[in-house]
Amino acid sequence: MLLKSWLSIAPNSDFSIYNLPYGIFSTATLSKRIGIALGDYVVDLHKIAELGFLKEFSFDKKKIFLNDFLNDFMALGKEITVPFREKIQQFFLDIPENNDFKNQKDAFLFPQKDVTLHFPVKIGDYTDFYSSREHATNVGTMFRDPNNALLPNWLHLPVAYHGRASSIVLSGTDIYRPKGQTKAPDAENPSFGATKLLDFELEMAFIIGKNNELGENITVENAENHIFGMVVFNDWSARDVQTWEYQPLGPFLAKNFASAISPWVVTLEALNPFRKSSPSPEKPLLPYLQSEGEKTFDINLEVFIKPENSEENLVCISNFKDLYWNMSQQLAHHTVNGCNMQVGDMCASGTISGKAENSFGSMLELTWRGTKPLKMSNGEERKFIHDNDTVIMRAYAEKNAGQNDNIQHKIRVGFGEVLNKIFPTK
Amino acid sequence: MLLKSWLSIAPNSDFSIYNLPYGIFSTATLSKRIGIALGDYVVDLHKIAELGFLKEFSFDKKKIFLNDFLNDFMALGKEITVPFREKIQQFFLDIPENNDFKNQKDAFLFPQKDVTLHFPVKIGDYTDFYSSREHATNVGTMFRDPNNALLPNWLHLPVAYHGRASSIVLSGTDIYRPKGQTKAPDAENPSFGATKLLDFELEMAFIIGKNNELGENITVENAENHIFGMVVFNDWSARDVQTWEYQPLGPFLAKNFASAISPWVVTLEALNPFRKSSPSPEKPLLPYLQSEGEKTFDINLEVFIKPENSEENLVCISNFKDLYWNMSQQLAHHTVNGCNMQVGDMCASGTISGKAENSFGSMLELTWRGTKPLKMSNGEERKFIHDNDTVIMRAYAEKNAGQNDNIQHKIRVGFGEVLNKIFPTK
Repeated sequence: MLLKSWLSIAPNSDFSIYNLPYGIFSTATLSKRIGIALGDYVVDLHKIAELGFLKEFSFDKKKIFLNDFLNDFMALGKEITVPFREKIQQFFLDIPENNDFKNQKDAFLFPQKDVTLHFPVKIGDYTDFYSSREHATNVGTMFRDPNNALLPNWLHLPVAYHGRASSIVLSGTDIYRPKGQTKAPDAENPSFGATKLLDFELEMAFIIGKNNELGENITVENAENHIFGMVVFNDWSARDVQTWEYQPLGPFLAKNFASAISPWVVTLEALNPFRKSSPSPEKPLLPYLQSEGEKTFDINLEVFIKPENSEENLVCISNFKDLYWNMSQQLAHHTVNGCNMQVGDMCASGTISGKAENSFGSMLELTWRGTKPLKMSNGEERKFIHDNDTVIMRAYAEKNAGQNDNIQHKIRVGFGEVLNKIFPTK
Repeated sequence: MLLKSWLSIAPNSDFSIYNLPYGIFSTATLSKRIGIALGDYVVDLHKIAELGFLKEFSFDKKKIFLNDFLNDFMALGKEITVPFREKIQQFFLDIPENNDFKNQKDAFLFPQKDVTLHFPVKIGDYTDFYSSREHATNVGTMFRDPNNALLPNWLHLPVAYHGRASSIVLSGTDIYRPKGQTKAPDAENPSFGATKLLDFELEMAFIIGKNNELGENITVENAENHIFGMVVFNDWSARDVQTWEYQPLGPFLAKNFASAISPWVVTLEALNPFRKSSPSPEKPLLPYLQSEGEKTFDINLEVFIKPENSEENLVCISNFKDLYWNMSQQLAHHTVNGCNMQVGDMCASGTISGKAENSFGSMLELTWRGTKPLKMSNGEERKFIHDNDTVIMRAYAEKNAGQNDNIQHKIRVGFGEVLNKIFPTK
C-alpha cells in the first residue's frame, strides 16, 4: 500500500515513512532519549507523549523514552512495540485526522543535523556468526585447502564465536590502528607493532528484544519474536594479528579493538516487504535448524573507501539475502543448548560476501590477500586500509510499490551508514 | 603478623580475619547488599555505616552498600577499597578500642546459614584464557600431535578467547545436561541429543575493578591496579559438542550453556601473603609481556565428584601458581591492542592442570579421553560427569604464621566452593 506523509521526505531517503527506525539522541538542551528517524528529522517520542497523543499505551512513557538505551523499550515486547510503531506511522500520514498533530510538529521534530546520536542499545553479550558460504569458502581457500575450503561442520550448523561487547562503537568513532603481536612466516620469533593488514568486514547484526531463560531454547519458528531489529556492522579486523593468534581458540585481539554499528535500529516489521527465502541447504539439516518460509531479507549492501582529501570509492556491492544461514536459524542454534539471550544482545552475521569478485565483504577477499590491489579514483592503490582512510558501509532495501499520479513509487527502508576514519597508531 | 579477632573463627575457616572477601547477600527481611564473609558470619557493611563507624569514608555508603552488585564499590578504586578493607579488619581485632563495635555485633553480623547469597558482580564481558602449559599440552597431545602438542604461538602469548557472560551462574545453581549437535568420527552426518561427554574445567577468574579507555593499554606493571579480586570458576564443557563445532573459530555452544563461580570475591590484598613468581618463560618474551617479581599466588585447588546418595571423591589436586602466564601478563596482552576493560569484567585462567596425573583439571585429562576411568568410593566409575553427580571445587591459600602461646598459627585465605549438581536434560 502506498503511504504518503504530511512531512516532506525525499524519495531516496533511507528514513521513509515505511521505515521508522529507533535510535538514541540528545540536543544542546535535551538529555538522551529515544528518537525515530524520519526523512531529515528525528522524532522525539517523549514530546509526542507529553502532548497527549499516546494515551492508549499504558507503559511508563517518561521512563521508557527518556532513556540512555532502547533496551527497556524493546523489552516491552512485540505485543506493544508493533502496534506502537503502527500508531507512529499513522500520525505522519497525510490525512485530515492528523492536522492537530501536524500543527504541533515543531515540538517533536528536530533536524538530524542538529542532534547528537548515541549508542542505541546496552549490549550484554555479542556473538559473531560466519554465515556467508562464499566468505567461508574464500577464507578457507586462502588459508587452508582450496579443495576442502569449507570445514566439515560448516554446512551442518551456523558456525559462530563470542566477541567483545565493550569495544563496539557508534558510527563516526575514530579508530586508531591497533598494535599487536604478529609473526612473519619466515621469522623465527614474533614481533610487535602496528598492524600492517587492517581490514573491514561487511556485516549486519540483529538485536535481541526478548529474553529466554537459561536452559530454554528458541525455535526457528519463534525466533523472530526475539529479534527486535538490525543495524549495519563493521567488524574491524587486524589480519596479521589474526593469523598468528587464532589457533586453536579463534580470533581475539585481531577483532576486539573495535567494531562499529550504524546508529538507527531498523525493525523486522519495517523489513517485512523485503522478505526472501534463504538458499536451499545443500545437506539435510537436523530438525532444529530446518527453516520454512521467507526468513531472510533482500538488503543491498555497499562499502566505500574514502582516502584522505579524496572522494568515496565504491569497492563492494553485496546483499544480505545471500547468506546461507538466516537469523532464525542462527538464534535457534545459539540457544539449542539452553544458552540464555538477553534484551540488547547483538548477533552479527559474519562477513557478507557474494559470488562475484566485487561482492566480497573484506579487503582480504577483494584483493585476494593483497595480490590484486584495488584502484582508487585518485590513482592510489589499496591492498588493506591505510591511515586516514575512511570506510563507509551503507545498507538499504528497496522495491517498487506501484504507480500513483503517473509517478512510479518505491518503498525504501535504509539503514543509513556506519563510517569510521582510521588514525595512526596512538 | 598474627591477627586475633574478638569473633570466634574456626582455625580452618576459609573466611579468616586475613581474608574478608566481598559478596552480595539478602535475608528474609533485608534486601540485597554487600557483605563480607568472616568465619561463619556475614558482615553487613550498610549496618556498620548506619551505626556511624565508617565516617572517615566520604563515598555514598547507602548507594554503594545497598546494591545488587559489587561493581560500584569496586569502581571506587584501590585508593579507597584498600584502606576500607584495612579499617574493617581493624574493627574485628581483639583490642579494647573495639569494645563499642563488638557490643553492637548483633546489628551487623548474620549467620551465613541464614542468608541468601547472590551473583556478586554485573559482568560486562567475559574472557577465558588458556594459560596452563600442562593443560594445553594434554589437549594438544590428545587431539592433535603428541610431538607438537603446543601450537607455535602458545609460548609467545597468553592464548584466550571470548566467552558468554549471560550464562555464568552462582555456585549452587542446578545445571541441566545440555543438548547439542555432535558427529561420531565414523558417522556420515551429525546427530542431535544430550551431550554424552559432560566435563568440568577447574579454573580461577579475576574481576576487573578499574576501567581502561578504548585505545589505551594496561601494562604488566600496572595490571594489579585494575584487578579487584578472584573467584573459583568451573567452566562446564560438552566435549563431544566442542570437537564437532570448534573449528575454525573456537568453542561456542560447548561452553556457553553454563559456567559457575564461587560467591565470595577474594581481594588481591588478601592474597598478598601467598605471592609467588611465575615459571620462567621458555622463550624470550616481547617487552610488553615481560613480568618481574611475584605476580602469581600459591592457591591450592581441589575438585570433588559426589555421586547421588554417596560421598565426595577428591579427583584433582592442583595449584594456581603453576600457570605459565600470570594475570598481569594476561591483562597486558588483552589490552595491548587498546581493548577496553570495564569494571565487573571477568577473565578466567583456563583449566589449571599440573604435571601430576591427579592434578589435571578436567575429566578429559584425568581419564585421558575416557580411557582411564576414575574409581568412586561407592564402586562406580566415571569417564565423564553423570546425571545427578555434584561437582565441587574448593580453593584456599595457607601458610604458617609462626608460634604464639605455644600454638602453631596459620594464615588461611579460602575461596569457599563452587558447587553444581547436574540434572538430566530438560
